[in-house]
Amino acid sequence: MKNSAPGALQQLIDALRVLPGVGPKSAQRIAYHLLQHDRPGAQRLGDALLGSIATVQHCERCNNFTEQPVCETCLDPERDTSLLCVVETPADQVMVEQTMTYRGQYFVLMGKLSPLDGVGPREIHLDRLLRRVVDPAFGGVSEVILATNFTNEGEATAHYIGEMLKARGVKVSRLARGVPAGGELEYVDAGTIARAVLDRRAV
Amino acid sequence: MKNSAPGALQQLIDALRVLPGVGPKSAQRIAYHLLQHDRPGAQRLGDALLGSIATVQHCERCNNFTEQPVCETCLDPERDTSLLCVVETPADQVMVEQTMTYRGQYFVLMGKLSPLDGVGPREIHLDRLLRRVVDPAFGGVSEVILATNFTNEGEATAHYIGEMLKARGVKVSRLARGVPAGGELEYVDAGTIARAVLDRRAV
Repeated sequence: MKNSAPGALQQLIDALRVLPGVGPKSAQRIAYHLLQHDRPGAQRLGDALLGSIATVQHCERCNNFTEQPVCETCLDPERDTSLLCVVETPADQVMVEQTMTYRGQYFVLMGKLSPLDGVGPREIHLDRLLRRVVDPAFGGVSEVILATNFTNEGEATAHYIGEMLKARGVKVSRLARGVPAGGELEYVDAGTIARAVLDRRAV
Repeated sequence: MKNSAPGALQQLIDALRVLPGVGPKSAQRIAYHLLQHDRPGAQRLGDALLGSIATVQHCERCNNFTEQPVCETCLDPERDTSLLCVVETPADQVMVEQTMTYRGQYFVLMGKLSPLDGVGPREIHLDRLLRRVVDPAFGGVSEVILATNFTNEGEATAHYIGEMLKARGVKVSRLARGVPAGGELEYVDAGTIARAVLDRRAV
């Protein structure tokens, strides 16, 4: 059937491999599943893919995905424009939003510094971040909160941005590290406890 | 961001959940990945989905996917029309083809009998299979080889089809069971060895 596979079916199987983690076998299984059991779902997915490519762009201010030039979060008049939280991805922004503790604005890097993968300051739009922070047209930022991940690359990204902004005299902070909520010391790794001891706070 | 997510992006995230095994978190990750890193791939996938829905149908004879009324395998003049191999899925047909030992024709059930899931003889097109076997217009079938899986449901399906066809005087056979190629007895399950002993052949 390698040769006799219909063109459109083979194209679908090949195209499905753009999905992360989908190899040839899974692609075949997904294609058969959609054509046999869920054509309406496949139609919705096809429409959604083409629709989102056509309309979803990056927000001019925060770099997050949006269908307008500037996203709703950046236009929200109730947000504190003097606070700017820097996150790696839109998903990270969602997590910070869900805490309900932050009402400032955001800048989404859409990545992290990773020189080995060819991702440098330009690829994560640090020039735009700098302009966003120092240009008074954006309302004036008094503090930048670095909320990149606590992985090696996230830490390196935070360090780089921190140095860049401090050189301009901007106040920069980093999310606190320590024992997670509900954490039992017995099961928390030593590095985390070490950091929690160093960063202990008066009560 | 739950509220501020752009409509097209949220629609894409929702639509991605038609893919088997994709939950809300993975759907979000896939959507961000495609929009950020692989828009051409997303375009190809969208086109392929809509294209295949529009063109891929079932072969009138063998029920496999095809873009023509009758598929290339069924039209191949070099195939033995007196042999018909019944498989559960197009992927199973591919596996039988890859053995290079079978040059007859196929019938693809696109499923297996599974009464608990509401899949009965009508859902796996046994009426069409019967017509395909007994109607002389299709060239006359002398033997039907049942190549459904050796699972409980596959075995039940084979048994049902076997009884149905034998009642019409059709010769029916089933794939041999036994120790797999390269199999070591120590690591093969007892049921397989028991069947291999029962079905032992003279040398």
